[in-house]
Amino acid sequence: MTTEVPANPPQSAAAVLPALSFDRDGLVAAVAQQHDTGEVLMLAWMNREAVEETLTTGRVCYFSRSRQKLWRKGESSGQVQRLVELRVDCDGDTVLLLVDQTGVACHTGRRSCFFRAARGSELVTTAEPLVDPKALYGQEG
Amino acid sequence: MTTEVPANPPQSAAAVLPALSFDRDGLVAAVAQQHDTGEVLMLAWMNREAVEETLTTGRVCYFSRSRQKLWRKGESSGQVQRLVELRVDCDGDTVLLLVDQTGVACHTGRRSCFFRAARGSELVTTAEPLVDPKALYGQEG
Repeated sequence: MTTEVPANPPQSAAAVLPALSFDRDGLVAAVAQQHDTGEVLMLAWMNREAVEETLTTGRVCYFSRSRQKLWRKGESSGQVQRLVELRVDCDGDTVLLLVDQTGVACHTGRRSCFFRAARGSELVTTAEPLVDPKALYGQEG
Repeated sequence: MTTEVPANPPQSAAAVLPALSFDRDGLVAAVAQQHDTGEVLMLAWMNREAVEETLTTGRVCYFSRSRQKLWRKGESSGQVQRLVELRVDCDGDTVLLLVDQTGVACHTGRRSCFFRAARGSELVTTAEPLVDPKALYGQEG
């Protein structure tokens, strides 16, 4: 499915961190987008450490608000996200992660977390799970 | 540039609102994506009223955290976003807005707010303004 992407060399967070405005919880929003198809996969959060780790390892690491700790995407499910490019928005409170997603991004087993659409007076499910969530080990992919 | 999109009929928020988990400030995150190119334009916030107005009018309305009031995108700049489809994520704290963006989304005059990319040890500007921000009247587009 996914095309081969050259490995990203380790990147420095030195230029990125001063451009970020972390919120009162020390977080920025992070939108993950599949780099080649443009599909928006999910939104999660990053603290300073998650940004640093993501840039230096090339593998996306978030900060889990529910667990209050670093969340290396795919650490339990194998559904990792390799970083292709990190972009910063105009006011620095959001990053856009262009990624290469292995498998599925959503803990429900769907490719994207945005699988419900408002159509007329209904909320319609637009995608079915590609894998059994039970096979993904745990709540978060 | 943008293709003609059929006008969205007014939609009901009745099925959407129960699926949303508003945060302690009464907000959900909203990612705006150009519906045909897949370009991620911006991230902003919506309260309950903004979601309702967006669905019923077909024109995107956010909630401005800095001004603490509804922000009808383009009200001062003319850079409106017409809603093509609103999607809800798995845990209901984020919506994805597929939109048809008139002009530019960013208050800097750029098409997208994500115009800085981490490359090696630098943060590189990847897009220049398409319009003079002074011509957009005010801070927010």
